[in-house]
Amino acid sequence: MKVLLLAAGRSKRAKPIEDKNFLRFCGKYLIKHQIEALKSAGFEDIIIVGGVHNLEKLRKVAQKYDAKVVEQKNLDEGMAGAVLSVEDLVGAEDLFIVSGNDVVDSSAYDAMKNLSGADSYLLAREVSEYFPGGYLKIEAEKITGIIEKPGAGNEPSNLINLVLHLHKNPKRLFEILKEVSSEKDDRYEIALDILMKERTFQAVPYNGFWQALKFPQHVLNLNNFFLSKLEKSIAEDAQISKTAVINGNVVIESGVKIFDHAVIQGPAYIGKNSIVGNNALVRESSIGKRSVIGFNTEVARSYVGDDTWFHSNYIGDSIIGNNCGFGAGAICANLRLDEKKIEETNKLGAILGDNIRIGVNTSLMPGVKIGSNTMITSGLVVAQDIEAGKYVSGKIELKIDDNKATIDPEARNAMMLKLK
Amino acid sequence: MKVLLLAAGRSKRAKPIEDKNFLRFCGKYLIKHQIEALKSAGFEDIIIVGGVHNLEKLRKVAQKYDAKVVEQKNLDEGMAGAVLSVEDLVGAEDLFIVSGNDVVDSSAYDAMKNLSGADSYLLAREVSEYFPGGYLKIEAEKITGIIEKPGAGNEPSNLINLVLHLHKNPKRLFEILKEVSSEKDDRYEIALDILMKERTFQAVPYNGFWQALKFPQHVLNLNNFFLSKLEKSIAEDAQISKTAVINGNVVIESGVKIFDHAVIQGPAYIGKNSIVGNNALVRESSIGKRSVIGFNTEVARSYVGDDTWFHSNYIGDSIIGNNCGFGAGAICANLRLDEKKIEETNKLGAILGDNIRIGVNTSLMPGVKIGSNTMITSGLVVAQDIEAGKYVSGKIELKIDDNKATIDPEARNAMMLKLK
Amino acid sequence: MKVLLLAAGRSKRAKPIEDKNFLRFCGKYLIKHQIEALKSAGFEDIIIVGGVHNLEKLRKVAQKYDAKVVEQKNLDEGMAGAVLSVEDLVGAEDLFIVSGNDVVDSSAYDAMKNLSGADSYLLAREVSEYFPGGYLKIEAEKITGIIEKPGAGNEPSNLINLVLHLHKNPKRLFEILKEVSSEKDDRYEIALDILMKERTFQAVPYNGFWQALKFPQHVLNLNNFFLSKLEKSIAEDAQISKTAVINGNVVIESGVKIFDHAVIQGPAYIGKNSIVGNNALVRESSIGKRSVIGFNTEVARSYVGDDTWFHSNYIGDSIIGNNCGFGAGAICANLRLDEKKIEETNKLGAILGDNIRIGVNTSLMPGVKIGSNTMITSGLVVAQDIEAGKYVSGKIELKIDDNKATIDPEARNAMMLKLK
Repeated sequence: MKVLLLAAGRSKRAKPIEDKNFLRFCGKYLIKHQIEALKSAGFEDIIIVGGVHNLEKLRKVAQKYDAKVVEQKNLDEGMAGAVLSVEDLVGAEDLFIVSGNDVVDSSAYDAMKNLSGADSYLLAREVSEYFPGGYLKIEAEKITGIIEKPGAGNEPSNLINLVLHLHKNPKRLFEILKEVSSEKDDRYEIALDILMKERTFQAVPYNGFWQALKFPQHVLNLNNFFLSKLEKSIAEDAQISKTAVINGNVVIESGVKIFDHAVIQGPAYIGKNSIVGNNALVRESSIGKRSVIGFNTEVARSYVGDDTWFHSNYIGDSIIGNNCGFGAGAICANLRLDEKKIEETNKLGAILGDNIRIGVNTSLMPGVKIGSNTMITSGLVVAQDIEAGKYVSGKIELKIDDNKATIDPEARNAMMLKLK
Repeated sequence: MKVLLLAAGRSKRAKPIEDKNFLRFCGKYLIKHQIEALKSAGFEDIIIVGGVHNLEKLRKVAQKYDAKVVEQKNLDEGMAGAVLSVEDLVGAEDLFIVSGNDVVDSSAYDAMKNLSGADSYLLAREVSEYFPGGYLKIEAEKITGIIEKPGAGNEPSNLINLVLHLHKNPKRLFEILKEVSSEKDDRYEIALDILMKERTFQAVPYNGFWQALKFPQHVLNLNNFFLSKLEKSIAEDAQISKTAVINGNVVIESGVKIFDHAVIQGPAYIGKNSIVGNNALVRESSIGKRSVIGFNTEVARSYVGDDTWFHSNYIGDSIIGNNCGFGAGAICANLRLDEKKIEETNKLGAILGDNIRIGVNTSLMPGVKIGSNTMITSGLVVAQDIEAGKYVSGKIELKIDDNKATIDPEARNAMMLKLK
Repeated sequence: MKVLLLAAGRSKRAKPIEDKNFLRFCGKYLIKHQIEALKSAGFEDIIIVGGVHNLEKLRKVAQKYDAKVVEQKNLDEGMAGAVLSVEDLVGAEDLFIVSGNDVVDSSAYDAMKNLSGADSYLLAREVSEYFPGGYLKIEAEKITGIIEKPGAGNEPSNLINLVLHLHKNPKRLFEILKEVSSEKDDRYEIALDILMKERTFQAVPYNGFWQALKFPQHVLNLNNFFLSKLEKSIAEDAQISKTAVINGNVVIESGVKIFDHAVIQGPAYIGKNSIVGNNALVRESSIGKRSVIGFNTEVARSYVGDDTWFHSNYIGDSIIGNNCGFGAGAICANLRLDEKKIEETNKLGAILGDNIRIGVNTSLMPGVKIGSNTMITSGLVVAQDIEAGKYVSGKIELKIDDNKATIDPEARNAMMLKLK
């Protein structure tokens, strides 16, 4: 059996995140997490399909896992193009197609093993309330169709199609894919529809964790998932102040320094050579390599990349890329004043790409997205998304008059006496 | 003897505080503190006069203390109306009239007991400097008049009239009150003037604590008073981190959680189920129920209601009502730049009603009053009072250009090496 | 031998610093550090030349060290005027001219002792890269000229002229100085040029620490120098909380109070009666007397004067004079967004004179200079230098509408349950 791991997508809807496969969760690229999950479940023969934008990085990853990488030349052909790009390598062998951006628990992979009695198997997530995805139509224990976003109340079943698809001898699939017009965005789905009429499709029911990484805020759900699987481990060479507090499931990597009165509240992951400064609090968050969570900063329920520096900030429910810097007092607001939902969640902070600088005392409103290579100056309130490569400033108007006020030099001494 | 506890006032001058009687000092309504002070001094038979706005709440309170509640129908009739509304219940019994909003020490109540030799007794606070209140005119050890705000230098004595008035057989008082025109705001005082000519009034001298709750800033003085009477007590089920510090006279109620490196500096009161977050500092303050003093917040010399949430704020010398929320970095400034007085005090922060939201990094200037149900957005400076039910925003103008700056990726590594 | 200590300069280029000689490094005036360095090296007979602006203060200092003070009447005559003002006191004795504002290590003073074989000796700092100062031209081991700012590549040697000049019998120097036109700013240097043709000048090579205090940012380098020489010492009567942390070479003077969870990271100096508040961090900094480093403040690599109060501030790489006050959340930004240099250094914060007030949440941009007696109101971004005696405000425009939003009272309870 061959596994086709789909990794050619260009993460357009995930902006400002540049390539979802190379987000590093708890120190490891998402694509590596996916490969390892497959390997753990016993799937050995993996072909990763990438695009020109990430082929080189994928090859480096593949090497370590003895996997192949194939380029999908025309990325506009979507999933159909990806499948066809491995036709020669697969031939008549069983083909297990796995999305690189749908994260599931190991039980999902286990469920896709040793299947027999049908020609194709789709992993089917049971849902209890309406979700805008593709629902499986089941007749006589066979899948007879996939209905995309039927609308609440019109669901043909409570089973959502996840892209973990096993096709026994996929030769006919390849043929149909080539026949379907390439104009269509849903060419693979159309091919499945045709194939279902010829062959037997079975749903493999699944109840465990599932999160697609489609929109950038989904990073937070994945972050929580990978954090939840951590086992406590503190590198021997990590320098942890005696007055720092480490609670719960926390992974602290090599070279990390944790200063006085800092608190790491698990689950949390602190990547190699990062620093957690005095009085800083990191809770339910993942921090990349060489990042600095400076004095008095709180990072809560957030994803933080590599080489990113904070100093006296509040970073709540936020996604911050690599090589970002926040001036002191800059804040990611994560709750609306009216406490209404933001992108379908109660609390959502800011979402930043890479190489971004935020000035001191600047406030980012809940859910704003800041594109890579952008700088935002000090003392601003940013309540809108900012594209990549921008320089954002405000209208600073100072009124400078002569100072007519005087200060009583004794007043301060009187106040001093009250301090205790 | 009957005690008439005056509680019908509509707290107009205390705005944005809605009903002074139901401010909760150290976990207990002011009206309860007043009733308990009377009971402790042996005054058993208490009639509370309320208005339509608080009658129901007063009745709930009265039940617990076996007190009566009487409605004053016409609240515009002021204190005279309040006294007349209990005429039928009192009859010829001695009548002890006590203000619900003048807080005095227990010695004041003791002094009003077992008095004989005169017809009426007024508690008389000795003052050493001019106070704009009613001064007692004393002739031959008898009170012969009350001079309202005589002006400094014109005081007839050093005795201020406090509303703790004991009238033996008040039937004549009721009669006179009914004769005096109800147009007058000072009808009760006019009645006393007439009564003094017929009967003997004596001053009961008093040197202890006294604070009238007239303007909202007076809440802070009362807060200090009630805090000063606390005896240290920590609920058994309170969860207090080992690295938290509790100093001095502190009451921590049931269900409270105190996180790492938090400090409670007494005198302080932390109400039921409240949370004091990491690194937070609460000193000389009273916190209500279910409130959250979040990460890095300092609450100093302040009154905080129930269900109010802070996060990385400075709340100094402030009065914050129920169900308020402050975004990170929002600050109550409590000292003028020129260090001049604010409402006659050196330090005064903000005064907030209930159900208020303040955005991140917003600054409230010393002494501003914010009405209930108001929202103030982020990054603003509020230097004026805001009425109830307002939505306050600012003019946010961002200038968005292309970013022409570049960052040297090595610079950060060099800085990293210097961190220790 | 007589030492002439130059202290008459009016610190014009050091604005907003008023008198460089009376900056207090680690609790001691710069002028005292200079005198003590001379005394330690065995130079006993010191004449300090001051001006009308600091004569009285110099006299007080001189008394303690048994030094003389001479007034330079015409301060526009610069160094030449200073030298001539001591002519009568020096006569034919050897004259060692020392700048009050060039700080060198003790080895420099030692090197200037017991010299023989030439008529004049100039301390010559070896430099490895171009510095815009006066370079010594050396021929046959003699100094034959001083070339001011020759430009990189045109240096006549790698030796910079420091103002530690020893003239054996300076009678001829005085004569020439009187002959050179007083119009010239560089009258002393012209005189040396003439003198070199008549007499033998030798360079005294020096490799140690050197910092001229010319521009205000130089204070930080001097601060580091004096901090580096500290030996750990904690006054017996200092009150240090058990949860405070003191690391490294730290001097804590008498009467200091250090509150819970504060950290002093050496080298650091905390002057008499100062307070370091809860959670505050002072690192690699010097704090004057009676100053308050309040709750949550970080002072890093900074110079802080006397009677200066902080509260929840970030003060990095900054110079703050006496009797200054910062409102909570006010920040000295110390790094440009583009990480380019500020005044030739990577990190530079704000530079403040004396008697300054900064409002809450106000941001001072890297390198701004604020003149004495200035007040800056709240929530501003100050990206320009401000002269002394100004009152700086911003255009506050609030938009006040009716609040149409409502808050779900249950939402907060749901959030409360998640806090742990």
